[in-house]
Amino acid sequence: MKNIRTQLKRFQYFYPYTVALVGASVGGQVNFMSCAWHTALSFDPPLFGVLVSRKRFSHGIISKAREFTVNFLSFERVKLSAQMGRKSGHDLDKVKEFKLRLARSKVIQSPIVEEAYVSFECRLAEVRAYGDHDLFVGEVLAVHEEPGCFNAEGILNPGKVRPLLYLGSDFYLTVDQDTLKHVLPD
Amino acid sequence: MKNIRTQLKRFQYFYPYTVALVGASVGGQVNFMSCAWHTALSFDPPLFGVLVSRKRFSHGIISKAREFTVNFLSFERVKLSAQMGRKSGHDLDKVKEFKLRLARSKVIQSPIVEEAYVSFECRLAEVRAYGDHDLFVGEVLAVHEEPGCFNAEGILNPGKVRPLLYLGSDFYLTVDQDTLKHVLPD
Repeated sequence: MKNIRTQLKRFQYFYPYTVALVGASVGGQVNFMSCAWHTALSFDPPLFGVLVSRKRFSHGIISKAREFTVNFLSFERVKLSAQMGRKSGHDLDKVKEFKLRLARSKVIQSPIVEEAYVSFECRLAEVRAYGDHDLFVGEVLAVHEEPGCFNAEGILNPGKVRPLLYLGSDFYLTVDQDTLKHVLPD
Repeated sequence: MKNIRTQLKRFQYFYPYTVALVGASVGGQVNFMSCAWHTALSFDPPLFGVLVSRKRFSHGIISKAREFTVNFLSFERVKLSAQMGRKSGHDLDKVKEFKLRLARSKVIQSPIVEEAYVSFECRLAEVRAYGDHDLFVGEVLAVHEEPGCFNAEGILNPGKVRPLLYLGSDFYLTVDQDTLKHVLPD
């Protein structure tokens, strides 16, 4: 028998989700935040969506910049994820405080994060409110990937990179590369 | 130095994502499909979004039913994920063919999937097109969870359940429970 809950005070049964640093720069300000609520939206055109609370400092930055980058972290960067997720750009300059290493994008003005194993440059296509978060829809204009982390088809190589997974309430873990398998329906 | 790609023929650098069976029943028809493109959208109200291609049989079923369930699979169900993802309800009755065990929902008419370790009952709140997929936004009305899979706060227990993760192109893996850690920014 399963437990049934209809009072959903803490709705977080959907984890684990990978963690990305999401942010932008505009008018001399730059900010990134940890983000686990994200999804691919479309292959063609390539669209990627990130959820950002309206309370977040990054919400204003991305809205003004009309662009953002998405930067996926490996398990070794778990401390950085905690810092960029639990501290706010309202209170401190997180880039300076946590010594985030930024690099130039190829197409847009906002930087990517060097510590990431893969980064997306996105042009903001739409912002839409869903409950207490806004969905920022990005058209993916460029991908920067650490050599060896993906094969020629763009499939992640878990022998080379261990993606950071979030479980909610500051819990993290990563994948077990020994369980990798290719499965067809027969 | 990172590789930079601006020609994104196969855009799948965002994996791993967990796998859920998403579906509904309407007018005597019932269908589910494997879905890795999904995200939480809001805590309050609890909203959950799933991406469904307009070519999918489930697209019509969910649109007509105006409700759906989201059913997360463990790694042991990898074959079921491949079957429910690579075969179409246009061609066969997947529930019958793959002996899917369905159970009654508490609030809505569409069934949940017994094989899942956690299921969401969702009332369709909105459908919106993003490129080649539609985002189905569900208001989460009830959660069914296998006892022991989550703690009282709703955090997944990786010692009890190994969630199925998708890497794209029919590759799968799961988490390493020994890497679980609680990390704060200091």
